[in-house]
Amino acid sequence: MNDPLSVLPNLVKENDKKIVLLVLDGLGGLPFKGKTSLEVARTPNLDLLSSNNACGLLDPVLPGITPGSGPAHLSLFGYDPLKYQIGRGILEALGVGMKVEKGDLTARGNFCIVKDGIVTDRRAGRIATEVNRKLVESLNKEIQELEGVKITFKSGKEHRFVLRLRGKALSAEVSDTDPHKKGEPLLKSKSKSKDESARRTAGIVNKLTEKAGKVLEEMDEPPNGIALRGISGYPDLPQFPEVYKLRAKSIATYPMYRGLTELIGMDVDYKPKTSQDEIQSLEESYNDYDYFYIHIKKTDSYGEDGNFEKKVEKIEEVDRFLPRIMKLSPDVLAVTGDHSTPATYKAHSWHPVPLLISSRWTRISNVSAFNERECARGNLGRIPSLYLTSLLLAHSERLDKFGA
Amino acid sequence: MNDPLSVLPNLVKENDKKIVLLVLDGLGGLPFKGKTSLEVARTPNLDLLSSNNACGLLDPVLPGITPGSGPAHLSLFGYDPLKYQIGRGILEALGVGMKVEKGDLTARGNFCIVKDGIVTDRRAGRIATEVNRKLVESLNKEIQELEGVKITFKSGKEHRFVLRLRGKALSAEVSDTDPHKKGEPLLKSKSKSKDESARRTAGIVNKLTEKAGKVLEEMDEPPNGIALRGISGYPDLPQFPEVYKLRAKSIATYPMYRGLTELIGMDVDYKPKTSQDEIQSLEESYNDYDYFYIHIKKTDSYGEDGNFEKKVEKIEEVDRFLPRIMKLSPDVLAVTGDHSTPATYKAHSWHPVPLLISSRWTRISNVSAFNERECARGNLGRIPSLYLTSLLLAHSERLDKFGA
Repeated sequence: MNDPLSVLPNLVKENDKKIVLLVLDGLGGLPFKGKTSLEVARTPNLDLLSSNNACGLLDPVLPGITPGSGPAHLSLFGYDPLKYQIGRGILEALGVGMKVEKGDLTARGNFCIVKDGIVTDRRAGRIATEVNRKLVESLNKEIQELEGVKITFKSGKEHRFVLRLRGKALSAEVSDTDPHKKGEPLLKSKSKSKDESARRTAGIVNKLTEKAGKVLEEMDEPPNGIALRGISGYPDLPQFPEVYKLRAKSIATYPMYRGLTELIGMDVDYKPKTSQDEIQSLEESYNDYDYFYIHIKKTDSYGEDGNFEKKVEKIEEVDRFLPRIMKLSPDVLAVTGDHSTPATYKAHSWHPVPLLISSRWTRISNVSAFNERECARGNLGRIPSLYLTSLLLAHSERLDKFGA
Repeated sequence: MNDPLSVLPNLVKENDKKIVLLVLDGLGGLPFKGKTSLEVARTPNLDLLSSNNACGLLDPVLPGITPGSGPAHLSLFGYDPLKYQIGRGILEALGVGMKVEKGDLTARGNFCIVKDGIVTDRRAGRIATEVNRKLVESLNKEIQELEGVKITFKSGKEHRFVLRLRGKALSAEVSDTDPHKKGEPLLKSKSKSKDESARRTAGIVNKLTEKAGKVLEEMDEPPNGIALRGISGYPDLPQFPEVYKLRAKSIATYPMYRGLTELIGMDVDYKPKTSQDEIQSLEESYNDYDYFYIHIKKTDSYGEDGNFEKKVEKIEEVDRFLPRIMKLSPDVLAVTGDHSTPATYKAHSWHPVPLLISSRWTRISNVSAFNERECARGNLGRIPSLYLTSLLLAHSERLDKFGA
């Protein structure tokens, strides 16, 4: 009932206003010696913007829930993350930069050790990523097709890879071959529905597993089997540019965020390698789009590494870029994160994320700085990330009244 | 899932406590030279009340959604505005003060210009309201009944009118005759269901359209046709006095708010013409009801007009009336708006609305004044308007525990 996508498409109209959404991944933090990275960072530009505008805190999913990057971003784009769930295989494929299309099936895979049909090491001793690349190369050479279905492997880190099946009438209604613990037999994939396509797909997965085992046996590396899980199909997501009537551009340096925004129909710039490149991409295409999503990855990476100081520095770097964004005079500028990644916690966390919205239609927050503590007393209060897109559309004067 | 009407009726009990809800329409604003109308207004009584009591912000529908008056008010009364939607024709009828009953059908109408079946001007040059009155008078005289159905027209402003059909077995499942843009043919109403009553209703609408065209042709004014849209029936809404076990009185000066509260079963005082009259109505009937809804219209009207100063003055006038309400010692007094209408924005907006609840069972807010900025840091936080009625019932000690 509270799904904004059940309301917004009937209210939204086109105009020429510009929206910029700047997402610092894992922005929120926890105090170390009394202060968070965002509190320690010198951010004069963000501080000034926030004191004159609207501030608050965003809950990515629900209070207490720590989100992965997929659901956290869906929520920022106005898609209820509890309703729109993207399969693990697809998210993994996006993460390694593998293209997926309607009809594709994807799975997360592990290289593993199998003895007499029993998985004795699910990660094959965490082989080096270099070894992984060699194995994937052989697999792609030796197994290109099965029963008319195109097979593609792509390396992840260490023992992980992604498998993509491309062909007609594939079904995601099939079970994992990964037993999920060691000492158990490698499983046969089974059809989870009475559908003929599911039975056929399970058969292909099993043949593929057998064939991959044979290819691996003949190589000089420990893994001799593959274990698949999270077999999933291309998600049927509402298309962002259509439902919001926005020409939308995605500017990100990491595959996961490029892939996810492509899934929802944004135009993705695949060139940027640095934050500097990202700002340049915004500047160069500013006239061609209505909505820009800019993703800064390193704030999250440093949080995960437990590198408090580097996270501070990355935040300060972004603050220095801010005048270049302001110079474009976007009608609405929002700065926030997809979730919190406190450097002290070294992982994604459930804490709500600071948000700042700058536009001519905001109230004044009267906070003294852009950080967790000040945003907690900002004039937007604490709201679900799910409503951010509604707010951006409203501030860009794109929403008609609901009811008379 | 979070619909209070799914919980409250099982918890509510009767007592003799008094609740007063004072709604300043369009109360919330945006800063002009750094301050909102509410911040500029001298409101010593509201300020004192808010500092000793509970304050917060209300979201009429969802963050970012700008509501019309209908949904905004339903929410204040505890009806989920996404669930209980009132047809456009009915809202229009309420707006012009036309009585509607169960079984009635209503539609919004435009006087228009038709040439060879094509609508060449949907608003007939925005004819004067005076001309509209003359046309409606003729239509009401010439077309009083069709196939046993009573036909009534009522003037709105300029080219707008409301049509009411009253008779047996009418159905709202019929399409508009208004093509919604000029240069298109005037449409035939069609049945949207297989129901016999829908087919019959569409037939009556079409006959009526033809007949009205003939009546208008013979007059000395430009319009020669009518275009109908939003054909809708009487909404089946839970009745406020029943579900909340409250003897409820509605005190408003404008038709729309009188009509809406009548739809949900409140006793409506149709006499008040000024805010002064409204306070007097409260005083005179104070012993006869448990719940009073008092509606102040002008704060919204001045907001829509962009008249920042007049909005300030109206707020100050209401503040001066406050001691008369306090003198009655209501057990619960809430002051809020149905939505925001910033004078700088000159329209309803999506910004949350200041709320103050005074009762012996509130915590202390410690805010320095009743306005957007202070209420944003009030002790109620930011909550949906939908929960206001629950809070009023709770503070009046009318709600049993939920569960054991």
